[in-house]
Amino acid sequence: MSIAFLNGSYLPLADARISVLDRGFLFADGIYEVAAVLNGRLVDSASHLARLARSVDAIGISLPLPLSAVEAAQRELVTRNGMTEGLVYLQITRGADVTRDFLSPPDLAPTLVMFVQPKVFLDTPAVRDGIAVATMPDLRWKRRDIKSVGLLAQAMAKRAAHAAGAQEAWLVEDGFVTEGASSTAFILTDGAIVTRPYSEAVLAGCTALALTQLARESGIAVVRRAFTVAEALNAAEAFITSASTFCQSVVRIDGQAIGDGRPGPIAMRLRALYIDFAAATGV
Amino acid sequence: MSIAFLNGSYLPLADARISVLDRGFLFADGIYEVAAVLNGRLVDSASHLARLARSVDAIGISLPLPLSAVEAAQRELVTRNGMTEGLVYLQITRGADVTRDFLSPPDLAPTLVMFVQPKVFLDTPAVRDGIAVATMPDLRWKRRDIKSVGLLAQAMAKRAAHAAGAQEAWLVEDGFVTEGASSTAFILTDGAIVTRPYSEAVLAGCTALALTQLARESGIAVVRRAFTVAEALNAAEAFITSASTFCQSVVRIDGQAIGDGRPGPIAMRLRALYIDFAAATGV
Repeated sequence: MSIAFLNGSYLPLADARISVLDRGFLFADGIYEVAAVLNGRLVDSASHLARLARSVDAIGISLPLPLSAVEAAQRELVTRNGMTEGLVYLQITRGADVTRDFLSPPDLAPTLVMFVQPKVFLDTPAVRDGIAVATMPDLRWKRRDIKSVGLLAQAMAKRAAHAAGAQEAWLVEDGFVTEGASSTAFILTDGAIVTRPYSEAVLAGCTALALTQLARESGIAVVRRAFTVAEALNAAEAFITSASTFCQSVVRIDGQAIGDGRPGPIAMRLRALYIDFAAATGV
Repeated sequence: MSIAFLNGSYLPLADARISVLDRGFLFADGIYEVAAVLNGRLVDSASHLARLARSVDAIGISLPLPLSAVEAAQRELVTRNGMTEGLVYLQITRGADVTRDFLSPPDLAPTLVMFVQPKVFLDTPAVRDGIAVATMPDLRWKRRDIKSVGLLAQAMAKRAAHAAGAQEAWLVEDGFVTEGASSTAFILTDGAIVTRPYSEAVLAGCTALALTQLARESGIAVVRRAFTVAEALNAAEAFITSASTFCQSVVRIDGQAIGDGRPGPIAMRLRALYIDFAAATGV
């Protein structure tokens, strides 16, 4: 039985229960982060913690612990679960009030929960063969820069993509790809990797940020601009990044092959660079 | 201590706890309804249950009970709590998986929770004096016809409105009022009450529907069209409807008085008609 963290205590995940009055449950009034664990160490932790701080600040939740203590608890959870490869999921909500009201008292104690998920990153079929994506209308709210737990639109898009035989949904708004339902979307075109600029329309991906830095350092041009579905279909390569996939080639979009329909060399090179970075900088 | 309903059991609200793996908590993957109780009876129950059925159907959750059994449980909850005036809150989620994944197994058992909230409807200061609203950008997702628990945008708008000295936020998109953060928005102009047509941009308000029917029956014209903030500021009257407020006059918008700054006669007449309807048709 996996061990979870809930408001300062370590306990079996099956015993990690919250009040139905928790505002995470009633209002999606909460923030989450997912950090990868490789070789028993947290990958790119400082970047995820900084985004956590930005997200909670954006909706006015106070972290119940300093970021250093959050990271220490994540590491303790990895140790207690004997995990070498997988994910640490973290969620903080505004806490449970004594009743349900859109307005909450300022002194609510936030709820902080973490649990681990075993996951194999290396040498998976999705890496070897690439993945298919299906494009879906982007139905989400307008503050996607905030990593909130209001994920119903994403879950609906993932479900529709799965029904269409794809492993990820690319969300489309006004003709342009915003991002994946749980990943950042990239294409390779004219020799440069292209991904959407930072704004309230997309989440600032931690893995995407690290990967674009690695790309630049190795001489691959990075262009931050929105791209259309048509551009993606005609791209030399396409790929996604996220904490839970690192970097995976997209070999089909809406059933149409990208490039030669096999994982492309640039995406695979960036994936290898990212894995080296992840292994070298884990904490 | 109030008594709640959770997955078939009646228990103290403080003991009503759910797994942190509940998809309502992790993904806002759930639906809610709020029904008023007047004189110990559920107000406009069939309308709320029909909307519940539409919402769960829209996101592919199966109701664990027939609607008649849901209503019976709501009534039992009212009885057990000895409630004569207040609200019954109901939430259904896709349930708790064994891990966190955007895709969920089709056989998850939904979570169904209900609890009551005492509330005074009649002769309150908000009714006597009217309320102030503040306009806020509508940041919500694009399927507002689905009454999902993804309410962070609404909670943020309510908080900002409260900080501006208002009791409700009117959400504005492309210059037009969509609706209140937790109510339907109406204005009275050219002798007709005006409210937004049904679409995916707004929730189909149960109270609003009943009230517009009562309006027509009593000779008050109803026009379904979008209206601007400027029109609202120049309206003869403005008001909101919801299960938890019935009908309340809006006497100020963004600090500017509407009409003579007092609750208007049409809104108060409609409120009285609604209360008569609520009392006569309660179950």
